[in-house]
Amino acid sequence: MSTEIPAHLEHLVTNPNFGSLATVRPDGTAQVNPMWFEFDGTNVLFTHTTKRAKFRNLQHNPSMAFSIFDPEDPESYIELRGVLDEVRPDPTGAFYVHLGKRYGNATQEAPPDSADRVILVMRISKVIGR
Amino acid sequence: MSTEIPAHLEHLVTNPNFGSLATVRPDGTAQVNPMWFEFDGTNVLFTHTTKRAKFRNLQHNPSMAFSIFDPEDPESYIELRGVLDEVRPDPTGAFYVHLGKRYGNATQEAPPDSADRVILVMRISKVIGR
Repeated sequence: MSTEIPAHLEHLVTNPNFGSLATVRPDGTAQVNPMWFEFDGTNVLFTHTTKRAKFRNLQHNPSMAFSIFDPEDPESYIELRGVLDEVRPDPTGAFYVHLGKRYGNATQEAPPDSADRVILVMRISKVIGR
Repeated sequence: MSTEIPAHLEHLVTNPNFGSLATVRPDGTAQVNPMWFEFDGTNVLFTHTTKRAKFRNLQHNPSMAFSIFDPEDPESYIELRGVLDEVRPDPTGAFYVHLGKRYGNATQEAPPDSADRVILVMRISKVIGR
């Protein structure tokens, strides 16, 4: 299975688009919500906290599916499937600040829940898109 | 659990936004991609076919989670959780055409796969948003 991002869809992962991250809850039901992200060329990185439902879902089932479309051309989209590969502590919220700036807030400050902040590192196992 | 759409988020379900529909695959992993939809005041309706992975996922696990954000203000979003309540045949693709027009294509024609077209009716069991 390809884990390469096709060239014509690369803008979807490099631009500061909002994507929708789906996980599976412990009861086996689906969960999805919009997320900031950054693609580092290999993995997809998200800011999150250890206190939220999505984090608990991922401890139970590491599966992640992430869908991004171009708001200017929503028929063009990419779905990345993979798993939570690593949880990196971010106790100063530095990565949150980095993402906030990436998404256009030049004066982004660290969030009140910085102490609980982590970086979710998603390893891509399959790329689907058009 | 509330199944009411909060007034300040109603535009998310009434406007022709693209949402992201998450399901769970038979192997327990998450799947998500952008979808056209229509909210009928109670349920969320999607056009789909009986030949696709998402349809097979839903036969196995009826859980659906649907996330919509406003492209003009992506921090405002709604997540609808629920289940596949009904599959309505749409063998002429009429609902596909209806949605195509809702999403701005005034001359939308029926798709080549009309014979396999169905309407997925999602019953909402929980509403989350901000």
